[in-house]
Amino acid sequence: MRRDEITKVILPESEIPKQWYNIIADMPNKPAPYYNPATLEIITPDDMKAIFPDELIKQEMSSERYIDIPKEVREMYRQFRPSPLYRARNLEKKLDTPARIYYKYEGTNATGSHKLNTAIPQTYYNKIAGIKRLATETGAGQWGSALSLATSQFGLECSVYMVNVSYQQKPYRRSFMKTFGASVVASPSNLTNSGRSILERDPSCSGSLGIAISEAVEDAAAHPDTNYALGSVLNHVCLHQSIIGIEAKKQMEMIDEYPDVVFACCGGGSNFAGISFPFLQDKFNGQKVRTVAVEPTACPTLTKGIFAFDYGDVAKMAPISRMYTLGHDFVPSGIHAGGLRYHGDSATVSQLYHDGIIEAKAYGQKAVFDAAVLFAKAEGIVPAPESAHAILAAMDEALMAKEAGQEKVILFCLSGHGYFDFTAYENYFNGVLDDIEYVSESAQINLEGLPKI
Amino acid sequence: MRRDEITKVILPESEIPKQWYNIIADMPNKPAPYYNPATLEIITPDDMKAIFPDELIKQEMSSERYIDIPKEVREMYRQFRPSPLYRARNLEKKLDTPARIYYKYEGTNATGSHKLNTAIPQTYYNKIAGIKRLATETGAGQWGSALSLATSQFGLECSVYMVNVSYQQKPYRRSFMKTFGASVVASPSNLTNSGRSILERDPSCSGSLGIAISEAVEDAAAHPDTNYALGSVLNHVCLHQSIIGIEAKKQMEMIDEYPDVVFACCGGGSNFAGISFPFLQDKFNGQKVRTVAVEPTACPTLTKGIFAFDYGDVAKMAPISRMYTLGHDFVPSGIHAGGLRYHGDSATVSQLYHDGIIEAKAYGQKAVFDAAVLFAKAEGIVPAPESAHAILAAMDEALMAKEAGQEKVILFCLSGHGYFDFTAYENYFNGVLDDIEYVSESAQINLEGLPKI
Repeated sequence: MRRDEITKVILPESEIPKQWYNIIADMPNKPAPYYNPATLEIITPDDMKAIFPDELIKQEMSSERYIDIPKEVREMYRQFRPSPLYRARNLEKKLDTPARIYYKYEGTNATGSHKLNTAIPQTYYNKIAGIKRLATETGAGQWGSALSLATSQFGLECSVYMVNVSYQQKPYRRSFMKTFGASVVASPSNLTNSGRSILERDPSCSGSLGIAISEAVEDAAAHPDTNYALGSVLNHVCLHQSIIGIEAKKQMEMIDEYPDVVFACCGGGSNFAGISFPFLQDKFNGQKVRTVAVEPTACPTLTKGIFAFDYGDVAKMAPISRMYTLGHDFVPSGIHAGGLRYHGDSATVSQLYHDGIIEAKAYGQKAVFDAAVLFAKAEGIVPAPESAHAILAAMDEALMAKEAGQEKVILFCLSGHGYFDFTAYENYFNGVLDDIEYVSESAQINLEGLPKI
Repeated sequence: MRRDEITKVILPESEIPKQWYNIIADMPNKPAPYYNPATLEIITPDDMKAIFPDELIKQEMSSERYIDIPKEVREMYRQFRPSPLYRARNLEKKLDTPARIYYKYEGTNATGSHKLNTAIPQTYYNKIAGIKRLATETGAGQWGSALSLATSQFGLECSVYMVNVSYQQKPYRRSFMKTFGASVVASPSNLTNSGRSILERDPSCSGSLGIAISEAVEDAAAHPDTNYALGSVLNHVCLHQSIIGIEAKKQMEMIDEYPDVVFACCGGGSNFAGISFPFLQDKFNGQKVRTVAVEPTACPTLTKGIFAFDYGDVAKMAPISRMYTLGHDFVPSGIHAGGLRYHGDSATVSQLYHDGIIEAKAYGQKAVFDAAVLFAKAEGIVPAPESAHAILAAMDEALMAKEAGQEKVILFCLSGHGYFDFTAYENYFNGVLDDIEYVSESAQINLEGLPKI
């Protein structure tokens, strides 16, 4: 295939990867073990059995380089994978840049984002463990949508605790999940102790991801036939997402290209991990390649946070992890990239950043929406606000290449489309979308009682 | 490629068709010429020049079998074509049918439906004719979205008259068009004489497709740099959509299959024409294949209408065409398949039905949404309510095959996704979605003053 003639690179179905890539095998410094938030002891596999199936616990703690993708999971992947790799020809023209810009588009599946890549194996491993129902939380709704679809296809039930404010503001996401048979409740709900106790104090509580996580974990722990599923942050989630980068590498190879730099937005870290870890494998083997995690200035975990042990959620029910954090009680502002509003980051991404192996960059949401609209007009795809962070970073890089007269090769992950985000776009058009800067100081981050590095 | 192993059939980019197929060349009885609604004379190319570019007028009146797709149009098609052909494996399992069910999915492009296939060439031909702006109407919003994207990519302006009730109820579709730079106004508007005169009588008029067409045509006729674009019904629109069926034939051939029967929903007719006409070409050459147009019982143009000359719109501004019609003043009920609410039908589709070459079938919307939800759970794609009509027909056929123990091959066109239709799904889940039957009698259809067959 000639590079100059292609607009999109499609891998045949037979090229769907047969193994995920586990970066932990190759990291010079491994991520620290998790700690049990109740006992402050290092977490054992047994600690996790109340809410996760054995196979996922094994993956979470594995240092094997490659982990086989089960046949049943690959069958489901066939519906929407391999995902396309596009050359952003029209964007290049608009920027008048000598750079060649590529993007891996994860929005072509029914749920519209990369989250389905991990929802499918998580559901599969729970199914073969005899689990009948999965409980989870969702904020922006992409993760809840993905898990609803996956459970529907494997015949499991699904209970989604949806942050109340999103439940009210995103009725389409709610109906989407219901279409696949999921039961969706606004969180805090009266279905759990933690929900009820919050509602008693504040009956109109708008909810938060932290509260929703607590409810879902409590639900799972209280019912033997029910497990919990998380859409980002954890090692096994990053592992499953590595399929994005493995495919992208093959696609670049098909047209005899290799990226100088790879961009992805970064909230909990699974999308960034997905596209970049397979390229980092090359970097560990001597290949020259930069990878950049892009985050919002309103929640600048890597660029402004500190590297420390911290709780994964407000209610201190999720494992303690060594990561970049803004503090487990930090409540990010209500920016429109809901998927990037997490106080911490994946342990692997954090360790790689701490070791100087990856880079990070932060942008305000106005500039991000400028880039989103320019990209939509050029490439014909309306991006999710989260993904638009990567677009802006890629555009900046392309403009620097123009300045320098360099033929740079840029790759970014377009992690999802923005079909459900038009309230945000409408605010942008109406000029009522503000840039929100992070104002806290790292000195104020409360790490009392936590393990020290 | 082995038939039993595939889930989706992907054509390489190099296989994007180089010509459209014009069924008029092969029809035993040609469609009648159009009549000018003002003069009641047969329309001449000159009559159409006020609102269409020469090349589209030529295509509208052509009887050439193949018409070349311009290089510039194929360049744009590469972004989203060839579209995938899926084997509906999970649906087959749910129905426990020996039939093999395939669907051609036109919802993978950024606007989510087949409409982009004609929006691109229409915009291109207008651009090379020196036109600066296109005016159009939109109801459900799929056509307006497609034209907004196409004009944005070719650098034309776009004015969309959106039926007022949709403008209010579908804010996401509205924002979608604005993202691509289109100017979107609620119709009736104060921008045209016809709009103003209606608003004077009824300031809160909810609008109709008929009114919106009148405004767009008036806008185009009044401005020399502006033309009008229509998303269905006309010959050149059906011609452009033939790319769907041409690709589907190649894809079926790749896995050594040929459909016994082809289903598509039918409003103005362009989606049905798109998938079925290339198969009808085979039928004209002796191949055994059935093609079935599926419509709503609330607007049963083919199954309950009469074959006669009638106006294309309420305001009698669009050409008079010989077609199946429920009467130009028939106002279909507010069903959720907005794209199927048209009183008439394409002249070619109508003639083929009159000649017994194609079949037609009608369904109520409750059964259609039952099928839509079952399909979503099985195949993981939420269908547009319009497309779900074809799904239901395909499911019925598959169940008949099961009854008869037949290995039937069924193909349908999944013309678009339902991401913007969750209000309808929500109504369905809440049990407030009613079946609406057509109650008028053909004797009441007013054809006064129109040419006779």
